[in-house]
Amino acid sequence: MTKRHPIGVFDSGVGGLTVVRALRRALPGEDIIYLGDTARVPYGSKSPRTVERYSLTCQQFLLAREVKLVLIACNTASANALPALREASPVPVIGAVEPGAESALAATRTGNIGVIGTLATVRSGAYAKAINARDPHARLFALACPMLVPLAEEGWTEDEIAELACRRYLQQLFAQAPATDTLVLGCTHYPLLRDVIARVASELAKHEVAVVDSATAMAEAAKEALGSGPNKRTNAGRLDCFATDTSRLDELAPRFLGEPLTGFDLVDL
Amino acid sequence: MTKRHPIGVFDSGVGGLTVVRALRRALPGEDIIYLGDTARVPYGSKSPRTVERYSLTCQQFLLAREVKLVLIACNTASANALPALREASPVPVIGAVEPGAESALAATRTGNIGVIGTLATVRSGAYAKAINARDPHARLFALACPMLVPLAEEGWTEDEIAELACRRYLQQLFAQAPATDTLVLGCTHYPLLRDVIARVASELAKHEVAVVDSATAMAEAAKEALGSGPNKRTNAGRLDCFATDTSRLDELAPRFLGEPLTGFDLVDL
Repeated sequence: MTKRHPIGVFDSGVGGLTVVRALRRALPGEDIIYLGDTARVPYGSKSPRTVERYSLTCQQFLLAREVKLVLIACNTASANALPALREASPVPVIGAVEPGAESALAATRTGNIGVIGTLATVRSGAYAKAINARDPHARLFALACPMLVPLAEEGWTEDEIAELACRRYLQQLFAQAPATDTLVLGCTHYPLLRDVIARVASELAKHEVAVVDSATAMAEAAKEALGSGPNKRTNAGRLDCFATDTSRLDELAPRFLGEPLTGFDLVDL
Repeated sequence: MTKRHPIGVFDSGVGGLTVVRALRRALPGEDIIYLGDTARVPYGSKSPRTVERYSLTCQQFLLAREVKLVLIACNTASANALPALREASPVPVIGAVEPGAESALAATRTGNIGVIGTLATVRSGAYAKAINARDPHARLFALACPMLVPLAEEGWTEDEIAELACRRYLQQLFAQAPATDTLVLGCTHYPLLRDVIARVASELAKHEVAVVDSATAMAEAAKEALGSGPNKRTNAGRLDCFATDTSRLDELAPRFLGEPLTGFDLVDL
């Protein structure tokens, strides 16, 4: 009997559990190891150098547990550290940006795409690069929305403050790119604000705006990367979760995972 | 000629520069070394274990530079790591909580004090302990306000969103402690929101509420700790700033320091 190798997923925090959720739906028999770098979260306000440095230690933790595939659930890490992570990994590494770009190109009718994310994701230019590599005629407008992560973590996702904050950001986007018909949620936290983002975006654009994220597309990319190799077991795979800090995990994690959690093991990186 | 030893100040980020500002006013001849742990910021949402672990590495960095005094500008670190930091330091260590408690007791007429801060500061109970050690009859109500740090960093300090967020938090405080006449800003970022906090607090309380912070009191405590030792030079002391990540420093640091900065040196902790 051959050893079952798990899929490794890491994120700066717990938002990446949305990717685990999509993964468990697409590949239910697979074992998964998740690592949230909750002691050093957030990555999105930090420099590429720090993001790369921390991401490499996260991946090293997963590789030491003999994962057969690494998923970078964090958009900031994907946008700033993918080349370094691929360079350092003997197994395939899937980031969030390329699947997100493909989802956006599949959804847009006019080729006018918006992406919202952290400061570090927007500054990296990674979405523009990924989108234009696939379609040189597509036009991308990227906007940093730093307040949306704390709003999602505070649970202020369906109220006046969430609406005002989304409006303030998206006004800038639609003022400069009014033809945008597809908006990428380029940060794992933003799906918690999906309803208000979609409503405000369509209202400001005065036309329907499709809102996409990369979690489902990442799970599809993982399925493809495993080829004929995915585990065909019918019983559900194991999910082992690790975090570098335990504060608020019990409160935040279930919001993103969408299923009960058996808990996190604490690890120092 | 004896070697001039600097005063060391650390914080999880750049907010602690408000303490440096007060220090340079109170002790203008002193040399200061400031360290902002901007790669691992924020501390306020993290567990006491992580806060203590990171704070010790910050202090170690300052001690290696032969500081004669350590100031913990960060309320979260002061509230969660002061005993460990004092234990590990051969020189005096001044936290933010005790000076803040003294400022509050000096300002209150009724003994009803409120403190707002990070989750980790509020959970620690450090302000209640410091206040009741000095006045067992004083009543403290502590409230965590996680959104106020990101609001201050985003520069949304004087608008509708800042007002709504402050109102949402302070309503809870004044509903449960209506007699509060003094409010401690128990986080280095909150002074940027002082105007809106003071206005909303007095409006909700229907009486004047004094708003105090610990920066000035910390500088006074530093002066006292140096005794007859402070540097009597009339020319201004050196200020050397270090940070663990350089992202947004040029934008954020001057808001807190209130004077031009020559820059930060990057250091890995």
